[in-house]
Amino acid sequence: MSSASDPSSSPVYEVNFGPPRSFGTVLKSKLKETFLPDDPFSELGSEPSLPRKTKKVVQYFVPVVEWLPKYNLNLFKYDLLAGITIASLAIPQGISYAKLANIPPIIGLYSSFVPPLIYCIFGSSKHLAVGTVAASSLIIAASIEEKVSPVDNIELYVSLVFTACLISGLIQTAMGALRLGILIDFLSHSTILGFMGGTAVLICLQQLKGMLGLKHFTTHTDMISVLHSVFANRKEWQWQSAVVGIIFLAFLQFTRFVKQRRPNLFWVSAIAPITVVIVGGLFAYFAHAEKHGIAIVGPLKKGINPPSINRINFDPKYVSAPLKAGLITAMIALAEGIAIGRSFAIIKNEQIDGNKEMIAFGFMNIIGSLTSCYLTTGPFSKTAVNFNAGCRTQMSNVVMSICMMLTLLFLAPLFSYTPLVALSAIIMSAMLGLIEYEKAYHLYKTDKFDFLICMAGFFGVAFISMDVGLMLSVGLALVRALLYVARPATCKLGNIPGSKLYRDVEQYPHATLVPGILPIKLGSPIYYANCQYIRERILRYVRQEQSLVTSKGNVIEYIILDLGDVTSIDITGVETFSEIRRLLEAKDIKMILVDPRLAVMEKLIVTKFIEKIGKESVYLSIDDAIEACRYSLRTSSKTEGVEVV
Amino acid sequence: MSSASDPSSSPVYEVNFGPPRSFGTVLKSKLKETFLPDDPFSELGSEPSLPRKTKKVVQYFVPVVEWLPKYNLNLFKYDLLAGITIASLAIPQGISYAKLANIPPIIGLYSSFVPPLIYCIFGSSKHLAVGTVAASSLIIAASIEEKVSPVDNIELYVSLVFTACLISGLIQTAMGALRLGILIDFLSHSTILGFMGGTAVLICLQQLKGMLGLKHFTTHTDMISVLHSVFANRKEWQWQSAVVGIIFLAFLQFTRFVKQRRPNLFWVSAIAPITVVIVGGLFAYFAHAEKHGIAIVGPLKKGINPPSINRINFDPKYVSAPLKAGLITAMIALAEGIAIGRSFAIIKNEQIDGNKEMIAFGFMNIIGSLTSCYLTTGPFSKTAVNFNAGCRTQMSNVVMSICMMLTLLFLAPLFSYTPLVALSAIIMSAMLGLIEYEKAYHLYKTDKFDFLICMAGFFGVAFISMDVGLMLSVGLALVRALLYVARPATCKLGNIPGSKLYRDVEQYPHATLVPGILPIKLGSPIYYANCQYIRERILRYVRQEQSLVTSKGNVIEYIILDLGDVTSIDITGVETFSEIRRLLEAKDIKMILVDPRLAVMEKLIVTKFIEKIGKESVYLSIDDAIEACRYSLRTSSKTEGVEVV
Repeated sequence: MSSASDPSSSPVYEVNFGPPRSFGTVLKSKLKETFLPDDPFSELGSEPSLPRKTKKVVQYFVPVVEWLPKYNLNLFKYDLLAGITIASLAIPQGISYAKLANIPPIIGLYSSFVPPLIYCIFGSSKHLAVGTVAASSLIIAASIEEKVSPVDNIELYVSLVFTACLISGLIQTAMGALRLGILIDFLSHSTILGFMGGTAVLICLQQLKGMLGLKHFTTHTDMISVLHSVFANRKEWQWQSAVVGIIFLAFLQFTRFVKQRRPNLFWVSAIAPITVVIVGGLFAYFAHAEKHGIAIVGPLKKGINPPSINRINFDPKYVSAPLKAGLITAMIALAEGIAIGRSFAIIKNEQIDGNKEMIAFGFMNIIGSLTSCYLTTGPFSKTAVNFNAGCRTQMSNVVMSICMMLTLLFLAPLFSYTPLVALSAIIMSAMLGLIEYEKAYHLYKTDKFDFLICMAGFFGVAFISMDVGLMLSVGLALVRALLYVARPATCKLGNIPGSKLYRDVEQYPHATLVPGILPIKLGSPIYYANCQYIRERILRYVRQEQSLVTSKGNVIEYIILDLGDVTSIDITGVETFSEIRRLLEAKDIKMILVDPRLAVMEKLIVTKFIEKIGKESVYLSIDDAIEACRYSLRTSSKTEGVEVV
Repeated sequence: MSSASDPSSSPVYEVNFGPPRSFGTVLKSKLKETFLPDDPFSELGSEPSLPRKTKKVVQYFVPVVEWLPKYNLNLFKYDLLAGITIASLAIPQGISYAKLANIPPIIGLYSSFVPPLIYCIFGSSKHLAVGTVAASSLIIAASIEEKVSPVDNIELYVSLVFTACLISGLIQTAMGALRLGILIDFLSHSTILGFMGGTAVLICLQQLKGMLGLKHFTTHTDMISVLHSVFANRKEWQWQSAVVGIIFLAFLQFTRFVKQRRPNLFWVSAIAPITVVIVGGLFAYFAHAEKHGIAIVGPLKKGINPPSINRINFDPKYVSAPLKAGLITAMIALAEGIAIGRSFAIIKNEQIDGNKEMIAFGFMNIIGSLTSCYLTTGPFSKTAVNFNAGCRTQMSNVVMSICMMLTLLFLAPLFSYTPLVALSAIIMSAMLGLIEYEKAYHLYKTDKFDFLICMAGFFGVAFISMDVGLMLSVGLALVRALLYVARPATCKLGNIPGSKLYRDVEQYPHATLVPGILPIKLGSPIYYANCQYIRERILRYVRQEQSLVTSKGNVIEYIILDLGDVTSIDITGVETFSEIRRLLEAKDIKMILVDPRLAVMEKLIVTKFIEKIGKESVYLSIDDAIEACRYSLRTSSKTEGVEVV
């Protein structure tokens, strides 16, 4: 390219100055990468006929159409066993988490009947087990209680819970349809770890109410209010309840321990909760536990889900509460459900489409909210049990659903004897498994900022409130991403001796520099938020170099900006380049560009920057640029590389 | 590195697997890059003695100590002329913008007396002229009017304006002291362009009140309310006022035109506003304009600024209004002042430290608020006039300040005859210069997203409100930055024939690939927000490649991930690498890493990822990696590169 190139050096390779792509092409490619990163319709192109294309599309949106025709008895054997196992978990969890949301326990059982059937039709994960989750139950309670007390007006309270569930479902469906899976990406593992840990601690403490048989309790969800409430009501403590609770908890933790030591005994911990419920119920029935200070669940009506469409309540007086609950739980439920679905799919080397899962979750919650269910997603514990029990397809959810229907039709009243303390023990045991302090310690050891994000979630949830904790943690993670953009990494390059490679001199201290030439690698992107920084940084390199170099008698004559890393630049960035060029020219330094990437080159051409600096100032490799500069260096002759300190 | 390396190929260069830097070192370097990008104390290290160090520090914080001892009469000649010129601009602008803020016009004059003196001590820009600005005046009025009407209770209203100014000053000082210049970086040029344009349109329309001599007018600041207010009061229109106004406006626009055509006649447009005020005042005095429907400014008291410390009002009933006004104007005033200071410094090849400027602005507004001034910054028009008039140092501000003092002491009552319509014409003319549609068109041609950011600011301000418009525009700019992080650019690399260079095959379509080896360049950073995307993207490359390649009988055996661009990775990123590696292994593909940068390498070592994949899977250059892979390819023999389509 450069006319100054030394004929004896290696050939100089051509830079592509081709005309920029059209705006339409760029926009299409960007939109595709942003919203369709998984390229869902990639297979469609190869299908020749329209009916087959239609079939593919239907199969894509309604996975059951794809897997059901291939279904056989052999697969069903596995799904039957897994389905019964998760049903045995669904009953105690359903009742417990409903208690956590302050709604009648029967709604917890309803919620394991309808939603799994819907998921089975639209869901794409083969291992996900549908059910209610603790964190969302608590968020719903905390939000709705701000407006309506479940004690004073349970009818209205339950209506608002259904409304929150409907709103969640609508948000989830809309997000899936608009392919906003990208929003879920912003809930990082560290955020979820901290949020879940904080929630688990809170829920554990709240269970002290059930364990100690307390009658009065706070509706606040921060740790200080809860602990204060526990100790302020010391007079209400019931030792009988506490003893039974500790025994149950010890049993549950023991089965968990067994599972950890002998993974093939997973079923021991899977059936432990239903065992606790049954044993507790029998004990309560025969020992008349109620008279000894051990409260029970109370009447449970036979019969399957009644319709609840008439209970949906958008009264403007209350609507802010279900709106807030719906929005937060929609996001958390999606993050949990999709992450869990993906984790198990990866083990089996399968693909899960997050956006499709959102639609499935959305439908599940919309229809659920109309049939007396509250928010459901894919809880970790249940899904893990389903997976371990050997489920093969979504059919295991259908089996669970049928089990729940039979329970609702015939066995529901039996569960009315379940002692509350047994439910508390089940919840506590499940929550203790969510406090993953080893993972937090691992974060501390390997990435302090991730640890900070995690701790913001943990302490925010524990000491302020669940939504503030979540926002703090997400906010901190966003700050990290923005800081990355505001301060892109730049480094000085040196030549690895004996090669044509140029690397960061901080990382490779033996790399050498040519006197008078300063190659700098710019980080990406070059955006308005970092233009000031990049200018200051380059000028600082020049100052540093000048102060080192003048003693040796060499002055910087060329600055080589390696743009190979820069994948995006905006208008302010291009303006900054012009400015830097002017500033450098005032110091008699020439600016050379190396390897502008496709998008950057297009912007530099459109803004006429390339015209301004001339095509001869742009090279495809640093080596080419340095050879050309070295050849035309005025002061020092073509010296070999000098060691940098 | 790799034992499989072909002995005949070029030598393989060593990757640096050195131990990670300590947490302290990394933190220090990160903090320095984030908060001290300009390295303000770089010169201190070279100073040997303590007194000289102290002197340097004092000079750094109080620039007047540095420049005043070197000041001489020759410089003063220039500064005197420039100072008188900007004083002639300060009087009409001060009165006009005070009217815009709905405060007594005399406060506008006070505001050009004290703040310039403070700036002269602490400010580091030699060209900045201190004064009030239109946008901030309007924001103050819009915010405070929400709580208190300037018509009903002017005393309280003015107190809250002073309080807003104090809050602005405190925020600016705090931001400077904490070196939060990084926050200002997030106000992009496009945002400011749109925001200023929208504000200018609004202010122009509002001036129709003065031009048409209306008595009743809306306090809303959106375009629809303002236009409705103008046309709803058609009966109040005064043709005399309109005629005078149009004549003044035509005159002002003509002088502006003269300046554009003959830049050395800049003083014609500089003294035009004071000419309009004087001519208007004489006309009003002799023609008894008031009786003909042309309102005048009204009584102006002689005397310099009274103290206003007793008027600062933090009454919780009203404090939200000055708090909001203070926060928004602090940011906007900083962005405007610093950007303008920097622009003129660059022309003269000088340096401006943004954080130091913030402190100077902060002090200026704190002391201003205690001496009956309202918010001041470095307005563009005044600074440009100062620069063109040949100012040499901050002394021109002192000259202006003294002129203002003399005006306040002796001439103030004369300005009471200024017709309001003259002020409206001055404001309108200034605002017309801020609607930079050519720049917006340039954005449209070169960067559609920047154009969108600009338009969000423009229409948000014009149709909703100033704060909403600003937030919309900033929010959109942040979304762009976050989208960049969420979807880093990845590309497939190919070999530029005859070289060892590997470049994007989309940009260099003639680049060749080795069958069975897929080199991919990953974008930076690899963060939680893009891990799912990166995984999907890599798997998609593999699927595409497999479908192309199987027909030729070659299967992908190696994936080479070029990490040369990746300057940052978090824990989720490392976990994703493990996951990708597992997924690829299931497909019998080996993963090779190339050139991990310093920070990334450290994270990979700390998390034991390097241990897991083995040091022999990491190369310093793609060429090394490809040579090694090619040598050990099992299926196809060492074929030469094949053209990609």
